[in-house]
Amino acid sequence: MPYVNIRITKEGEVTADQKRQLIEGATNLLHDVLGKNKKTTVVTIDEVDTDNWGIGGVPVTEIRKRQK
Amino acid sequence: MPYVNIRITKEGEVTADQKRQLIEGATNLLHDVLGKNKKTTVVTIDEVDTDNWGIGGVPVTEIRKRQK
Amino acid sequence: MPYVNIRITKEGEVTADQKRQLIEGATNLLHDVLGKNKKTTVVTIDEVDTDNWGIGGVPVTEIRKRQK
Amino acid sequence: MPYVNIRITKEGEVTADQKRQLIEGATNLLHDVLGKNKKTTVVTIDEVDTDNWGIGGVPVTEIRKRQK
Amino acid sequence: MPYVNIRITKEGEVTADQKRQLIEGATNLLHDVLGKNKKTTVVTIDEVDTDNWGIGGVPVTEIRKRQK
Amino acid sequence: MPYVNIRITKEGEVTADQKRQLIEGATNLLHDVLGKNKKTTVVTIDEVDTDNWGIGGVPVTEIRKRQK
Repeated sequence: MPYVNIRITKEGEVTADQKRQLIEGATNLLHDVLGKNKKTTVVTIDEVDTDNWGIGGVPVTEIRKRQK
Repeated sequence: MPYVNIRITKEGEVTADQKRQLIEGATNLLHDVLGKNKKTTVVTIDEVDTDNWGIGGVPVTEIRKRQK
Repeated sequence: MPYVNIRITKEGEVTADQKRQLIEGATNLLHDVLGKNKKTTVVTIDEVDTDNWGIGGVPVTEIRKRQK
Repeated sequence: MPYVNIRITKEGEVTADQKRQLIEGATNLLHDVLGKNKKTTVVTIDEVDTDNWGIGGVPVTEIRKRQK
Repeated sequence: MPYVNIRITKEGEVTADQKRQLIEGATNLLHDVLGKNKKTTVVTIDEVDTDNWGIGGVPVTEIRKRQK
Repeated sequence: MPYVNIRITKEGEVTADQKRQLIEGATNLLHDVLGKNKKTTVVTIDEVDTDNWGIGGVPVTEIRKRQK
């Protein structure tokens, strides 16, 4: 009965099908590695605005501008 | 001074009054069971899109369609 | 299928029965207020050392000393 | 490689520059106190609706009304 | 630069190699589905005591006893 | 009334005084940048085993070995 929380930046469009793949993939991973019961595995995905995510002390919004 | 995080799927309308009941109920629970100080108990509620929540490897959006 | 995370300071002994009451109480709360399915409601409890929890800028370890 | 999650109520406007200051400040804090590598420090900011945040068993929405 | 938090019950022994497989698998999943940069993907694993995890309103400790 | 969760790897000894500095520093940061009330600001620190933390698909335990 694992609980997996995936946090990603909200950039471009993440489709419902891609989210389905993340949910299925994380559930299978826990089953394959630890034999966890798929039925009670819960996965949630949080999409975080690029202003609200920073790495190296810099917001992702600024990192993306510099990368252009 | 407990911190309680309640995560639910965003389905139908959850009213401000229902959220108030969750906040009050969780705060009372910690007080009644463990004697925690209500004044410093914090409760947050996260509403997660049904595309972003999965159980059994399947997004809730799909589960709801099958249930109809 | 809610997910509830309860974080409390590790002080005194919290018994298995008290934890059971928290799990049962939080599950009932979500059922009573929002009609959520109890079977798929998950509750986790994190016990955090008093050195690792602060309020008002002060660790709980120090707050407890001052209260004596 | 610390991970810092900052949760605040969504009240007034928090500007992109203020978020930048939070990201930079939290990253510097971990570096200054523990010598953590800034490059791999991740900071995320969650803005939570005042209906969805409670303290003392009362939603922040109500607390703000009483304060007026 | 995703952040993935995997929470599992502390049951039996989860080896360092199994944890490595979870970290590698989750990192690959985000790369394969969304093209996320593996270098800045962070994965953390929380092992939670069976007294501190409940599903269906019942602690896992009790569920395991009944299953025997 | 912000809530800040700081997650770090459990390496070397993090002293109670360093934890106090993290709690005080994070509380001051939210006050200085957003004018948040220090009295109701909560900070928690999670120390995670290096086997349970990965970046770039590799556990920190292995990264540290390679760095020697």
